[in-house]
Order: sequence, then structure tokens, then C-alpha cells
Amino acid sequence: MTLSPKTFDLEISRGIAQITLNRPERLNALTFEVYGELAQTFRSLEKADDARAVVITGKGRGFCSGGDVEGIIAELFARDITGLVEFTRVTGALIQSIAELRRPVIAAVNGVAVGAGAVIAAACDLRIFAESARIGFIFPRVGLSGADMGASFLLPRIVGRGRAAEILFFGDLIGAEEAHRIGLANRVVPDADVLATARGWAERLAKGPTFAHRMTKQMLESEHGLTLAAAIEAEAQAQALCMAHPDFREAYEANKVKRPARFLGAEICDPPPAAPKADAGSET
Amino acid sequence: MTLSPKTFDLEISRGIAQITLNRPERLNALTFEVYGELAQTFRSLEKADDARAVVITGKGRGFCSGGDVEGIIAELFARDITGLVEFTRVTGALIQSIAELRRPVIAAVNGVAVGAGAVIAAACDLRIFAESARIGFIFPRVGLSGADMGASFLLPRIVGRGRAAEILFFGDLIGAEEAHRIGLANRVVPDADVLATARGWAERLAKGPTFAHRMTKQMLESEHGLTLAAAIEAEAQAQALCMAHPDFREAYEANKVKRPARFLGAEICDPPPAAPKADAGSET
Amino acid sequence: MTLSPKTFDLEISRGIAQITLNRPERLNALTFEVYGELAQTFRSLEKADDARAVVITGKGRGFCSGGDVEGIIAELFARDITGLVEFTRVTGALIQSIAELRRPVIAAVNGVAVGAGAVIAAACDLRIFAESARIGFIFPRVGLSGADMGASFLLPRIVGRGRAAEILFFGDLIGAEEAHRIGLANRVVPDADVLATARGWAERLAKGPTFAHRMTKQMLESEHGLTLAAAIEAEAQAQALCMAHPDFREAYEANKVKRPARFLGAEICDPPPAAPKADAGSET
Repeated sequence: MTLSPKTFDLEISRGIAQITLNRPERLNALTFEVYGELAQTFRSLEKADDARAVVITGKGRGFCSGGDVEGIIAELFARDITGLVEFTRVTGALIQSIAELRRPVIAAVNGVAVGAGAVIAAACDLRIFAESARIGFIFPRVGLSGADMGASFLLPRIVGRGRAAEILFFGDLIGAEEAHRIGLANRVVPDADVLATARGWAERLAKGPTFAHRMTKQMLESEHGLTLAAAIEAEAQAQALCMAHPDFREAYEANKVKRPARFLGAEICDPPPAAPKADAGSET
Repeated sequence: MTLSPKTFDLEISRGIAQITLNRPERLNALTFEVYGELAQTFRSLEKADDARAVVITGKGRGFCSGGDVEGIIAELFARDITGLVEFTRVTGALIQSIAELRRPVIAAVNGVAVGAGAVIAAACDLRIFAESARIGFIFPRVGLSGADMGASFLLPRIVGRGRAAEILFFGDLIGAEEAHRIGLANRVVPDADVLATARGWAERLAKGPTFAHRMTKQMLESEHGLTLAAAIEAEAQAQALCMAHPDFREAYEANKVKRPARFLGAEICDPPPAAPKADAGSET
Repeated sequence: MTLSPKTFDLEISRGIAQITLNRPERLNALTFEVYGELAQTFRSLEKADDARAVVITGKGRGFCSGGDVEGIIAELFARDITGLVEFTRVTGALIQSIAELRRPVIAAVNGVAVGAGAVIAAACDLRIFAESARIGFIFPRVGLSGADMGASFLLPRIVGRGRAAEILFFGDLIGAEEAHRIGLANRVVPDADVLATARGWAERLAKGPTFAHRMTKQMLESEHGLTLAAAIEAEAQAQALCMAHPDFREAYEANKVKRPARFLGAEICDPPPAAPKADAGSET
């Protein structure tokens, strides 16, 4: 597995992996290749020590318009039920790969996010919306159910059961402010700031404590369907591991002398050393 | 099983089944007979192809005032524990029948909804509130617990655990605006518009895609307690079925030529043909 | 087990048990002793008939600043993994004891609630916030994960999955108004009123119906991870028990003659009889 995807952009720098969907002329519609490569990339990032937080966004006016109408949907009519469930499992595997990646994943929802694009955003841990962005689980509009890639599982847990039913039965687009009101957007920012805000969040998270953040992600995913008693025991074990990690002591030592904590591996987030200046007298 | 209930009104037309509780002088309090017949009706609607969406509302000033104080509550004091649990199972079966009906069910909360009336509203998929409507899980006020007919399961999933605890411990009435703020009401409309709005939503849903809408309802109910991984697999299977359904292709074909999709069975929603006019020159 | 804690204040009067954390000079930071004694107290209250509702608050400017930096955190560095998980199980047991106590537990969040203090507040059934109070799951700031004492289980169920992820990954402090908006605070009141408001709520709940309230608490805790069908059956059994209790009849009889219901044991909430006056002519 490599981290050189062919069908979208991936840049890893200063601890942040940024995935940019790059079919702006199709509002970043997904093809079979993009689905597969995205899932593979999210899986590979688990091994990438230099990717400590992930941002996903779209190039151009849209975030992601879902499965490409000609590239995918037209194609599906030729498939029998075996072929269809093979496809829906591929799309579901992408959502699973986001959930399983032990990194905070932030969606910078720069524009319209519909269909599979909406589910991808919902599967991320955090969502920054551009003011003009809209999100829609438009499955009923294309003849399909709201049970797609885990949407019927995720959405009730994000916005509550009543709002989720409305969103999934109608498939209407929701504006950024309403998304924020109901807890689907964590923040709404001016369009020009959406990527910078998401990267700012990622930068803060990339500084660590990385072992602890990965545990937080893991446990948020692991605790569905537990009882509270089982969850308390699971967290007792998880947090004991974190207490055995040097980052716990580092936070304590830093706090004692009122300096910022420097968590393990945080140097990856530092700006590159300034290039030696040709002319020391130049303005800076 | 028939669809001719004796204790409330049921009208099926243009794809919508409308249930109207009809004891306005008692704010539509429920009797043993109404409980039983309501559950039976919801179960029967599963087989009714001409009922593609359901609206439930109340006649007069109230939506539903819960179990009738004289018709039911006075009666319960004569029962032993066997008789009591028989009753609570009957009431729970009504909620189960709403959840199991693979149709979107919309509550037009025209007025006060308390006790069992509040739980019925909470069990519906969507809730339109009249401005002056109020909802109250008033069980503690009548000496009972908030664990009634599934209320302690449903409410935390609709409004969150903290708000649900307050609502269930105190049993206070909540106004429509507050219900909307916390996600218990999907919309608040002027009193005069509540039924029309609910019917408008039902009309839109009745046009389909019906196979897909039924799957959405099914999956929203099926996915409690699953892990995300299990939910993703369940949805992969569910959506593959929807992709094998003609409605999926219809949406695609309609979109290609920019015409509205015409989903299977949608003709049932069409207005009846105009009666031949006796006098073509008359005003219409 | 006694109800005479040494490390915080406990006062039981007129049906209300009030726990006041009492290390104001440390913003009520927790020590090993406080953790243990708090859990023991919550467990003992189950047997205390005169404690029908519980209020927990903090003395001075803070609610609870979490584990004491010197008293606990410094100490933990000397422990191996066995000792660490022993500690995290002790802290988790406190949350479990709040959840298992079949009484409504109300947090009067009088000031800052962070770390373990935030989780204690989240584990209570109801939360009243002072206007100036703030709450923070600051675990990542001290190098730890958001999976602490059940926080990763509780918070998504209170505020939704998206908001919970933000709160747990960043550990930032949240003001009272925002806490109310997202459902984490039930009410925000002027600082001077926070304890009185919480006690007012407790007073109302202490009046009963106590058997029913205890059942509500039990069922809210029991129904995690059930299916709706299983929850409906569980509630049918629970409510049948409540219907067999004298409080159900009392509410009915009281309502018939339009007098306030007097639930079993409510006399404990009555004000103490006035002392006989030495001088009948004195002002009152």
C-alpha cells in the first residue's frame, strides 16, 4: 500500500494529511477508483507516523457530489444483485476505513456535500462548514433508501432520531447554519476560511497528545452498544494505558513550570527551518 | 383484520392513510378498545398498498390526552399484577406496531399530547406541531414512572440523555417552540396549518420511492444496538436491494431528461379525474 | 457503610441528600480519599430512605477541578500498569455509583467543572449551571484521552456524536449558555441561585412518586443497547410494578377531588413543626 493516490490529492506535511478530492468539474463526484483508493488511503494512514490528523476537502465549488451519475450509477444497471452488493460493500468500506483510522479526521465542507459525499462528511469526527455549503442525504431523490454506507446509523447519533428521520426520508439539502444548530456542523466559517480553519484544528490536534487522541478516536468507535458499566471498564483500561505513556508526565512537568507541553513526536508540526538568507539586510 | 376501525376515523386516499382520534370531548383519551384497534390498524396498514404514508392527528382541541382516567385508570385498580402487565403490554404493542410499520408515520400534533399521547407522538417518525400544541410525559404526575411504552428508550434518542431525564422525571408540559429547539418537533406551524402541513409531507413521501422509504424506516428501527461495522454491512445489503428495484432506474432516466421521476405506484397519489362538467360554461 | 464522610460535606434533610465538595482552596480537587468516599456515599444512599433526591455541588468558586495535581497525578507516576488501572477503576466506580443510585441526582454546577469534575456532572441525571460556570473535559490538555470514567460513552448520548468528538478531542472549556444550547446544561441561572434552583428541583422530586422516580432512573440506565422491542417489554414490566404501587392510586384519588397528591413518604419533605413560641405577642 502506498500513499500516492492517483485519483485525488494527498499531501502530508507538518503532521497533517490533507486529502483533496480533485474532480472539480464534476463537483468531486466519486468513481469506483476514487472509492477504492480513498478507503485504501485511510487504511494506509494508520501506519503513517507523520500523519497525526487528517483533513478532507474538495477542490473547487463542491465538497463531494457523491457517486458519479455516469461513471457509477449508469454502470450499476448492468449488475446483478451480487454485483450490486459488491459495490455497496465497497462504499461502506470507505466509511469503515474513516471510522477505523485512529486519527481525528476533519471534514472541511467547502461546498455542496450530497449522497456519498454527505455520508463521508458525517463519518468524519469533526465538520467545519463554509457559510454557503449545504449537505444532503439525497438518496430518496435518486430512488434509494437513506440506509447507505451507515448513514442511518450515524445520523441519528449526531442529530437525534427525529431530525435524522426527516433528513433521510426527504433527502433535502440543509444549509450550514441549520447544520450547526442541530449538531451536524461543528463550526460555520466564511467560505474563504473553511480550509484554514480545518487545518488550524488539525494542526492543534497534530501536536498531540497523539497516543491519547488515537485512544479517544478508538473508544468513541468502540463503545457503541456497550452498557455504561462495560464502557466504564473499557475506559479504565484505555486511560490506564494513556497514564503509562510519557505524554502524561510531559503535561505534568510542563504545567509545573508553566511552559507549553511538548508531546511525543510534536516536532513534526514545527515549521521548517528558515532558509539561510542571501541578504541579511533584507526586510523580513 | 380489517381497516374499518370503530373507535377512531381512518381514511385512505391518494396514498395517505389518515388516522384521526375522535373523542374530542375527552381530548381524544384512549380506551382499551382504542389501544387495541390502533395497534391492529397499524399492523394492517403493512398490507395496504394504497397506504404509502401515514398521518395521525386528533379531532378538536387535543391530539391525545393518554389513557382515559375513568375508562382505563379507574379500571386498573381492580387488576392484579398479571392484569396490569397485560395492560402495559397492550399499550407497548401499539408503539411497537408504529415502529414496525414500514411506512413513514407523521404525527400532526394539533393540540395537547400527554401521557400515552406523548409516547405515540414520540414513536412516529416525524412530528409537526401546531404553535399552541404542548407535549408532556406526565407519568410522574399520575404516580407512574417515565418508563412507559418505550418512552425511556425513545426520548433520549430524540433529544439527548440530559433533556430526556428532565422531561421524564418532572412530566412537565413542553411548548412547541421548545420542542422544536430540542429536536422533538420537526416543524412548528400555525395551528390552522398543522394537518395540511403533515398531509403535505405525507403526500410527498407517498409519491415514493416507496420501496426505498420502507427500507429507510426498517433500517432506522433495525440498527439500534449494532456496531457501526454491522450497520454498514446491513446497509450495504439494504441498499443493494434498493438498487435492484425499478425506482432506482426511473430516477436516473428521469434525471437524464430533466423530468420529474415517476416512482412505482405513484399514480395512486394523482388527483381523481375531474368529473365531466354538466355545463362547460360554468365557473370552476 | 456510614453516611458520615470525612472528606466532603453530606447533609440529609427534608428528603434531600446534599453533597458539598469541600476543598475550596483547591477548587474542590479530588483526592484518592474523596473518590473512594464519594462512591461509597452514593452506594450507601441507596439504603437511605430519607434521601429521596440528591444534589451535588462545590464549596467556593469551583464545582470540581478533577483529580488533584499533587495529591493524585504526581502520585500516579510511581505506579506500574497494575496500579494505574486500579486507580482508573476507582474513578470509574464513582461514576458507576451515581448511575446505579436509584435516585434523581442533580449537579449544581456552581463554578468550573473540569476533568473528573466534568464527568461527575455528566453522570448526574440533571445539571443546573451557574451563569459563570464552565465545563471542560480537559483530558487531552493533561496528556490523556477523552475516554475517562465513561465520558466517551456519556457525552455522545447527551450532546450528540459530532459535538462530543469536538469536546473530547480539544478539551476546551464550554460556557454555561453553550452547554445549555447543546443539551449539557438543563438550566442556566444567576450564580447566586444555582444551589437554590437545584434544591428546588430536588425538593419537588423528593415529594415523589418515589417508587416511580426510582424506576425511571433504573430504566434510563438499563435500556442502553436494547432494541426498541426489548425496551418496550422492559417498560411494560416496570410500569406494571408502578401501577401496583399505592402512589398510582393516590394520584388518582387526589385528582378526583382536585387536591395535591400526597405520595408515600412525602411527609419527610415537610418543614419541621414550628417551635412553640415563648412570647405569643412577638413578631413573626
